[in-house]
Amino acid sequence: MDKITIGIIGAGRIGKLHAEHMSRNRQVVVQTISDVFITDELRAWAAELGIGSVTDNYKDIIGDPSIQAVFICSSTNTHVPFIVEAAQAGKHIFCEKPISLDYRQTAEALKAVKEAGVLLQTGFNRRFDHNFKRAREIVQDGKIGSPHLVKITSRDPAPPGEDYIKVSGGLFMDMAIHDFDMARYLSGSEVTEVYAQGAVLVNPVIGELGDIDTAVIFLKFANGALGVIDNSRQAVYGYDQRIEVFGSEGSVTVQNDHPNTAEISTKDSVSRDNPKYFFLERYHESYIDETRQFIECIVHGGEVPVDGRDALQAEKIAYAAKLSLQERRPVQLDEID
Amino acid sequence: MDKITIGIIGAGRIGKLHAEHMSRNRQVVVQTISDVFITDELRAWAAELGIGSVTDNYKDIIGDPSIQAVFICSSTNTHVPFIVEAAQAGKHIFCEKPISLDYRQTAEALKAVKEAGVLLQTGFNRRFDHNFKRAREIVQDGKIGSPHLVKITSRDPAPPGEDYIKVSGGLFMDMAIHDFDMARYLSGSEVTEVYAQGAVLVNPVIGELGDIDTAVIFLKFANGALGVIDNSRQAVYGYDQRIEVFGSEGSVTVQNDHPNTAEISTKDSVSRDNPKYFFLERYHESYIDETRQFIECIVHGGEVPVDGRDALQAEKIAYAAKLSLQERRPVQLDEID
Amino acid sequence: MDKITIGIIGAGRIGKLHAEHMSRNRQVVVQTISDVFITDELRAWAAELGIGSVTDNYKDIIGDPSIQAVFICSSTNTHVPFIVEAAQAGKHIFCEKPISLDYRQTAEALKAVKEAGVLLQTGFNRRFDHNFKRAREIVQDGKIGSPHLVKITSRDPAPPGEDYIKVSGGLFMDMAIHDFDMARYLSGSEVTEVYAQGAVLVNPVIGELGDIDTAVIFLKFANGALGVIDNSRQAVYGYDQRIEVFGSEGSVTVQNDHPNTAEISTKDSVSRDNPKYFFLERYHESYIDETRQFIECIVHGGEVPVDGRDALQAEKIAYAAKLSLQERRPVQLDEID
Amino acid sequence: MDKITIGIIGAGRIGKLHAEHMSRNRQVVVQTISDVFITDELRAWAAELGIGSVTDNYKDIIGDPSIQAVFICSSTNTHVPFIVEAAQAGKHIFCEKPISLDYRQTAEALKAVKEAGVLLQTGFNRRFDHNFKRAREIVQDGKIGSPHLVKITSRDPAPPGEDYIKVSGGLFMDMAIHDFDMARYLSGSEVTEVYAQGAVLVNPVIGELGDIDTAVIFLKFANGALGVIDNSRQAVYGYDQRIEVFGSEGSVTVQNDHPNTAEISTKDSVSRDNPKYFFLERYHESYIDETRQFIECIVHGGEVPVDGRDALQAEKIAYAAKLSLQERRPVQLDEID
Repeated sequence: MDKITIGIIGAGRIGKLHAEHMSRNRQVVVQTISDVFITDELRAWAAELGIGSVTDNYKDIIGDPSIQAVFICSSTNTHVPFIVEAAQAGKHIFCEKPISLDYRQTAEALKAVKEAGVLLQTGFNRRFDHNFKRAREIVQDGKIGSPHLVKITSRDPAPPGEDYIKVSGGLFMDMAIHDFDMARYLSGSEVTEVYAQGAVLVNPVIGELGDIDTAVIFLKFANGALGVIDNSRQAVYGYDQRIEVFGSEGSVTVQNDHPNTAEISTKDSVSRDNPKYFFLERYHESYIDETRQFIECIVHGGEVPVDGRDALQAEKIAYAAKLSLQERRPVQLDEID
Repeated sequence: MDKITIGIIGAGRIGKLHAEHMSRNRQVVVQTISDVFITDELRAWAAELGIGSVTDNYKDIIGDPSIQAVFICSSTNTHVPFIVEAAQAGKHIFCEKPISLDYRQTAEALKAVKEAGVLLQTGFNRRFDHNFKRAREIVQDGKIGSPHLVKITSRDPAPPGEDYIKVSGGLFMDMAIHDFDMARYLSGSEVTEVYAQGAVLVNPVIGELGDIDTAVIFLKFANGALGVIDNSRQAVYGYDQRIEVFGSEGSVTVQNDHPNTAEISTKDSVSRDNPKYFFLERYHESYIDETRQFIECIVHGGEVPVDGRDALQAEKIAYAAKLSLQERRPVQLDEID
Repeated sequence: MDKITIGIIGAGRIGKLHAEHMSRNRQVVVQTISDVFITDELRAWAAELGIGSVTDNYKDIIGDPSIQAVFICSSTNTHVPFIVEAAQAGKHIFCEKPISLDYRQTAEALKAVKEAGVLLQTGFNRRFDHNFKRAREIVQDGKIGSPHLVKITSRDPAPPGEDYIKVSGGLFMDMAIHDFDMARYLSGSEVTEVYAQGAVLVNPVIGELGDIDTAVIFLKFANGALGVIDNSRQAVYGYDQRIEVFGSEGSVTVQNDHPNTAEISTKDSVSRDNPKYFFLERYHESYIDETRQFIECIVHGGEVPVDGRDALQAEKIAYAAKLSLQERRPVQLDEID
Repeated sequence: MDKITIGIIGAGRIGKLHAEHMSRNRQVVVQTISDVFITDELRAWAAELGIGSVTDNYKDIIGDPSIQAVFICSSTNTHVPFIVEAAQAGKHIFCEKPISLDYRQTAEALKAVKEAGVLLQTGFNRRFDHNFKRAREIVQDGKIGSPHLVKITSRDPAPPGEDYIKVSGGLFMDMAIHDFDMARYLSGSEVTEVYAQGAVLVNPVIGELGDIDTAVIFLKFANGALGVIDNSRQAVYGYDQRIEVFGSEGSVTVQNDHPNTAEISTKDSVSRDNPKYFFLERYHESYIDETRQFIECIVHGGEVPVDGRDALQAEKIAYAAKLSLQERRPVQLDEID
């Protein structure tokens, strides 16, 4: 078996996560990882994983003819230029979500990808989650008939720091964007209308930064179904990731994953441990799976499971949600471009 | 103990239900029941229950000086005149929901009640449900902190007939009105804004009659919380009645009641029986409790647990929802009167 | 409809329970209730229910030619003589469990019943429980194939007082006897072998009285299946009543009933209220059902759902369990008599 | 960090499993794997994993001075001689369960281990399972008070083939041995008495081979608690691995793991996917954890989490169970040697 040689741009939390998974994938050689800050710890970690080299210049990756695929895990504002450069260098691309905070720039990046004829996969890892994947299968197999309602609950255990909030693009673009993709994935239909309500209930500082921390977002789908997403930056009991698709012949629900099934009964109550704390625990397997499938597509051909258009559509919905919140009205998706 | 003597106007399904419960309440004498259609079956049923007399004239109840309280279970369009007459006759009143399809008329009826100084309780029986009552207690005890989100799922197992749909006042007034009351009950706060989306996905005839069968309704509360209700006229798996209140310190959820806890594991799946089929099974105890408490209030004094203003507010929210759907925009509650 | 006239012997907790249910049954006239201790409270309670008379002489019931059926709810040591007298007087009999602490005497009583040709139903109310009834249906419908294992967990929330322990006949006869009946009911097969282990872990006083408070009991059934019962006099979290029947094609389990479905998630855990506290809450409906069916059998004919032989078999198993514990060996049921 | 060099004897399913996990462990070098049957597939698989060499002679491992630890995953009858040889060669040992079918030989092996001063860990992987570990923690933290009852359900999805049955040592030694260890692990106490019941209900061929396929096993613990294990070789709905520890202050239960949390409601029922099919799915993480901890002990010192005495005690209980079944009587553990 020929191995795929890859480079990873960005050695933050998510870049390192992909690096660790890729270094265990027997189909892959991790040639280079780049980051703007290189530390001794980073070098030691890379050596331990058997990564060939560490650089502070991403061009060492894009310019390396031995590298076939690039993982773009750097800050969001760099995604579009890096995609364009990588595509023009003929490299397949795995890019974290969102591609950009401006869907028009995303469209530009996709154009470059198309012209270059390379693969681009977007990091909507939740599509690979065992629970959501099963729900989607059930919907697609027609077991609940035609979808009438799609409900998504998506709440983080704790809000990010102020520095992150400032550059995040806001709750819709940073957090709900996963849910916008999930809505399309579960319903098998495009979103046509968005109405969003937001509030600052968790931390007033978030409001001072011009963002919200709590939201309810209404969706309308091309197939006639209705949808609703609720978000909070702080569920004190842990990561809350549940969905329901209700249809003409039934309903499928997905509950949270817990670290164990132990249940204690005492004189006070019957209780169990909280859900898995956050995305690294809950989506551990899905991060492995999404990149494994990306490599499979390069090796064996075929379409990537989450493509650039998926990123673009989710970004447009996020933009429509923001517009809806500002203008206090439902927004049609075809108003966006 | 002195007994309370009551009369029941309307011997349809719900009038008979209250009659059966009241006839088993040792504090109550059911003196008379009236209906526009009197049959031999009705007479036999009344005799069996020990009800004193059956009449086709509701004035035999309102004009009877021995009767202290009247249960109004007749068709919605009669509620207001009957309330006014009963109040003027000095009788306490238990009235089914909604009081009327026009909140302005309801306000008129409440005025008459106030002037007469009688008690008026509205039939929002779900407040007496073991599950919702417990959720409300948990919220009021501060166990989940300040409410941020209130979510209500309320789906019937099958749509009513066309004849019923025609006079029902529409999904918001007929069905969601319970959920509007539940939203106020659970959040402990008034609704200030409504945005409603509706669709005809279950049965096109419902659309032809100018109604919808599927809805998602957004609420905003005076305390800053957000709310969302989803409704369907047809959940093929049975009556779906779940809620969640999410707050700063946690969340409380209520699942459906099932007829038993038996779970079967076979080579195909692990399964259990569907939820209780419909309101008569699910809310059996709550119907007993609401009328028992009404009688208690008459006997021992005190305020009724669900008063006329609760009816009025729910009707205003229903009206706002209808307006929102028609005008495709969020509606402020203070636009309504 | 002709009404059945009944008398109730014994106005303790269970006698009063049956009296309340029977007084609401439209097919029944409760003519007389007897107890060795008559108080003003008892008289007032009986008057309230519309019970004709109160007496301290059970012969006023057995000797009353207008009475067709007798409920025997007095202390266990009186059951056999009362059954014999009632049978000889031609009255149908509902008798609480166990019929006696000596299965040979029970056999004598059954002989008298047979000779008189009257109906005798035993108070194994759990057969009428919504959960266990459903489990039995599933087994009988063949959905789990041939039963291989029957597992019964039966734990009280708190031990009875010493006075009760002294006359109870011991844990096997007093408490596990319900489970012995349940084992026969669920498996559809007779018990052929018993091996019992017991311990005093809850309260040493129970041991000093010659009883145990914790037990594990093995059963072998005629159809080849194995069974196991575990008992405790004290489950601090409430009444614990679960079963499982495992077979060649699957398994059915029954979990506890809880007072509501509310679940709270906080930073500490996800929790819910404890199971229903004790038999009056958990088996409320089953007590109504068992007596309703007894009356139905008198009115319409047919066999009672739990007959004298069911009582006798359960008592024999209890006896075998006691013998097994004493002699530390498995005991064959056919050693008993 | 210095790496630990290991050799693996036996390249069957479990040997290969450990090899795969160890080859991903950065603290480990897998030097050699041996098996009596060497195929091209095995060589390719080993090369892929980076295993240094493949041999058909286990002595190439035990005689290799660079190897510090040996994993014994060969057939049970070879465990004792291999342990003795490996210990005498000064190598740490990880040995699959049971160490032998004859607890006296196991004792001999342990003597050799002790004399050599090497570490020996036994493959009771279930102690590392997320569910059971959490249950044990809860018990040890005193959250359920003193244990009164330990209940273990352990059922395989399908019986092994006849060839395996023949050499397995029987259900108690082959299958229930995990449960005997679990009983000691959960209760924190030694087993003092065993009473076993067995039946052939799944497949008569198993009976013809002198084995049973269904069992209920009673245990008595030194701390006064009682225990019960139920086993079946065939649960058609999948691997059934549940436990309960009930005590003076409460109870902890562990339910099965399922592949996802999706639940489908249709007009027929509410259902979910069966539990994880078998030990490779259910105990995937625990296999990784047990060997990771073994390596940690070698690197950092300290006692192994499951030692030779744990193996010996479980084997003695299995022997006692067999004796109990044969002689149809409870057997005291101190009868065994």
